[in-house]
Amino acid sequence: MFKDFTTEAINAVMESSWQAFKIYKKVSLAQRADFMRRIATEIGNLGDGLIELAMKETNLTAARLQIERDRTIQQLNSYAAFCESGQWLDVRIDMADVNRVPPKPDLRKMLVPLGPVVVFGAANFPFAYSTAGGDTACAFAAGCPVIVKAHPGHIATSELVAKAIRRAAESCGLPTGIFAHVYGASSSVGEALVKHPHSKAVGFTGSFAGGKQLFDWGNQRGEPIPVFAEMSSVNPVFLLPEKLSSSAQEIAKMYAASITLSVGQFCTNPGIIIGIDGDDLEKFVQLLSEEIHSIAPAAMLNSGIYKNYSEKRKLALSQHGVKIVMGDNQNSPAGLESAGGGMMAGPTLAVSSAKDFMGNPLLQQEVFGPYSIIVRCADMNEMYAVAQNLQGQLTATLMATENDILYNEVFVDTVQQICGRFILNGVPTGVEVCLAMQHGGPYPATTDSRFTSVGADGIRRFARPVTFQNWPDALLPLELKHANPLRIWRTVNGELQKKEL
Amino acid sequence: MFKDFTTEAINAVMESSWQAFKIYKKVSLAQRADFMRRIATEIGNLGDGLIELAMKETNLTAARLQIERDRTIQQLNSYAAFCESGQWLDVRIDMADVNRVPPKPDLRKMLVPLGPVVVFGAANFPFAYSTAGGDTACAFAAGCPVIVKAHPGHIATSELVAKAIRRAAESCGLPTGIFAHVYGASSSVGEALVKHPHSKAVGFTGSFAGGKQLFDWGNQRGEPIPVFAEMSSVNPVFLLPEKLSSSAQEIAKMYAASITLSVGQFCTNPGIIIGIDGDDLEKFVQLLSEEIHSIAPAAMLNSGIYKNYSEKRKLALSQHGVKIVMGDNQNSPAGLESAGGGMMAGPTLAVSSAKDFMGNPLLQQEVFGPYSIIVRCADMNEMYAVAQNLQGQLTATLMATENDILYNEVFVDTVQQICGRFILNGVPTGVEVCLAMQHGGPYPATTDSRFTSVGADGIRRFARPVTFQNWPDALLPLELKHANPLRIWRTVNGELQKKEL
Repeated sequence: MFKDFTTEAINAVMESSWQAFKIYKKVSLAQRADFMRRIATEIGNLGDGLIELAMKETNLTAARLQIERDRTIQQLNSYAAFCESGQWLDVRIDMADVNRVPPKPDLRKMLVPLGPVVVFGAANFPFAYSTAGGDTACAFAAGCPVIVKAHPGHIATSELVAKAIRRAAESCGLPTGIFAHVYGASSSVGEALVKHPHSKAVGFTGSFAGGKQLFDWGNQRGEPIPVFAEMSSVNPVFLLPEKLSSSAQEIAKMYAASITLSVGQFCTNPGIIIGIDGDDLEKFVQLLSEEIHSIAPAAMLNSGIYKNYSEKRKLALSQHGVKIVMGDNQNSPAGLESAGGGMMAGPTLAVSSAKDFMGNPLLQQEVFGPYSIIVRCADMNEMYAVAQNLQGQLTATLMATENDILYNEVFVDTVQQICGRFILNGVPTGVEVCLAMQHGGPYPATTDSRFTSVGADGIRRFARPVTFQNWPDALLPLELKHANPLRIWRTVNGELQKKEL
Repeated sequence: MFKDFTTEAINAVMESSWQAFKIYKKVSLAQRADFMRRIATEIGNLGDGLIELAMKETNLTAARLQIERDRTIQQLNSYAAFCESGQWLDVRIDMADVNRVPPKPDLRKMLVPLGPVVVFGAANFPFAYSTAGGDTACAFAAGCPVIVKAHPGHIATSELVAKAIRRAAESCGLPTGIFAHVYGASSSVGEALVKHPHSKAVGFTGSFAGGKQLFDWGNQRGEPIPVFAEMSSVNPVFLLPEKLSSSAQEIAKMYAASITLSVGQFCTNPGIIIGIDGDDLEKFVQLLSEEIHSIAPAAMLNSGIYKNYSEKRKLALSQHGVKIVMGDNQNSPAGLESAGGGMMAGPTLAVSSAKDFMGNPLLQQEVFGPYSIIVRCADMNEMYAVAQNLQGQLTATLMATENDILYNEVFVDTVQQICGRFILNGVPTGVEVCLAMQHGGPYPATTDSRFTSVGADGIRRFARPVTFQNWPDALLPLELKHANPLRIWRTVNGELQKKEL
């Protein structure tokens, strides 16, 4: 039913996208926002049918999928509002000074769209980070057509959402090339899309291997293009001594829920918990195990993800010095597999010394699923060493009192250095969709820590500045005209303002 | 005197830079600005000695170098002011809502520095795009230490400026690792710097070959890092029919000056002039030749650049269909070499049909020096085809009346698509240092069209967002505190404001 696109079909898609770009880049901010809101409405109109189809394809629960569907709608609507505000265009105007020697020209800068954006959706978010997800919404807001490579894990769901986008485009009078939905179980389809001369940027959410491959393809092109890949993160959680001593029970409860949330299938799942050896940590591990024990195993997204979880878990547990403290004692959750109908994943807690952990990069690799490793440090110095040893992360969390923070300033700075979101006394799961969100971090969490894939600031990934020099008012885009007819924030001769000039 | 750094010396430099980063990243915006202003003062204090040394090393005139020195000082001072304003930090605050289900956390985002930045200076700008030039100023503003790979073409000048930076660092009480000055005639020194694990970003101004190499090294690292390379641009100028008909003399005068300015050694030198065949174009070429004829040949920066000019010019002139219309008729300016003391470059105007031009990518390559090729089109359709055929550019210029613009909308959009700065009825040379400037364009003009290397927005190249989630006011950076003690612009719950919360 969903056959891989041929090279000819991909070329036709990209040509149509390029032609649509010529029209869409000139569409007003208000029209782009209308289009995005219309997509949100069309997705809402799909009703329970969408949820039921996604349940079949992903094993996610109806409740979980309803929340994600609503989040997708909220993303489209909130990014539409930000798009319309024009604030993200970063308009800068420096007015002419004809009396200066040499005369200073009139210069007016704003962001313009890059061109067609290729989006690779996530297995674990069939709505919010897939077909009409964050990357697609950002690209449409920026003024770019989108080509979605449908995720094979939920391709029928993706097609249903694609139809909603097509209906929205039609009802807004936009060219059909504004959006394309491409099938490709083979990686050669993705490769052809990324390497096509009309592709101008790529958005991706998924594995390290997948994201890195796209990044390399993007950079190896005759004309390199930006590839924003949100890849892998183990989201370290540091338990500082005073906090752990006072709040072990509370932390255990929070983290049992966070580790097992959605069967651990979140990119912000806390995969590493770092504490200082002693009675407090022992008590915490005991409490955490008990809390997790009371949570029933659940089915993973699909057999590929389940297989990957089993294998990566097994590999991690087989490493020198790693012991299992909670979960099936066999080196695979196979017992659960037969009992639970194919893809039931049992939560797993492992433990390692800081020394063994730091000596083995494999233990930093993401085990996608309900798995966490507890790293036991001798003291704060060793915890600092672990922090220095960690790769880039989407998030890092401190469970700490004010004293814990103030007495360990250099350590705290080091943890900040490796993450995009720095959480105090909370859990990394739960990524709020708002402007202040940063969902992106130093490599290998993403391929460019300077951008985010959640929140309307993600629009900037797909736009670039152009300066108009010496253009008369009549010929300038609305955003740059003297009268500021769109009433947007602009930095004029160094001052932020909404005034007309 | 200036020996290449050994691997050990490079490692020591990078380690010192990394240690300095830990301190400098916490230095306040005001202190960073003070440091930058101090550098400006120290450069001013170098007086005529600096100019005289640079004259010897670059063949540039005293007047040209004084302007560039003043521009360098202006850059440091104006970027310092923008740094201090905090506007560039893009602060976003979304406040907590404990009554929401689930509760909404407090989220506060700002830019933080990436880490040590390696800067490769330009041959043609010994001050403004070298040791204490735009990249260095942006990195210091962002909170990053800088390692400058001294340009071999003006290494003594570079060392003198480096001393000024060191004096400024010392007088501001900053660690010595904040700035390093590395010698390396061999490319292996640059390679070691870019590939060092402590390097977190690269700034470069120079040739396509050099910039592309750094870009590849940066992307091939275990941890890829952003490389902003400002490389090559031929800055096309389109002569639209109504304008050419009415203003041939005026355009010829402007462009004779622009083509030969500083012996054509500007990255914004107009290298391609595109017009429509006929009497108007013929008259224009005649006028332009006459104007250029009256400008005396001058010495190029150094023998390497002169040799490169001779060779590239010769190669371009030997291509099918290319004819010389002005300049030495020999296929090299060798006659001038012997006459003028080594490196005198004669301005050259060539001409080609649009067909020959579009069929030969070599004719789009930059001939760095006072060289331009005039491309003759049959009509507007062919001019449109040439625009579609062009690679990414720093600038594109239209010489056009309002009618010329209004009657050729699709063509005008296409030209905008390939450039970072879009000039109407002006010349591309003369890059104003101000916030509204975009000096960056689609590849191969630069490696990332989303950033600029001129103007204070260039600071963003070296910074990334971090979101603080759920931190109490006492522990937040000044920029994010409720009271907004720095009085900076912040987007709070979607509204730009300077208020305290």
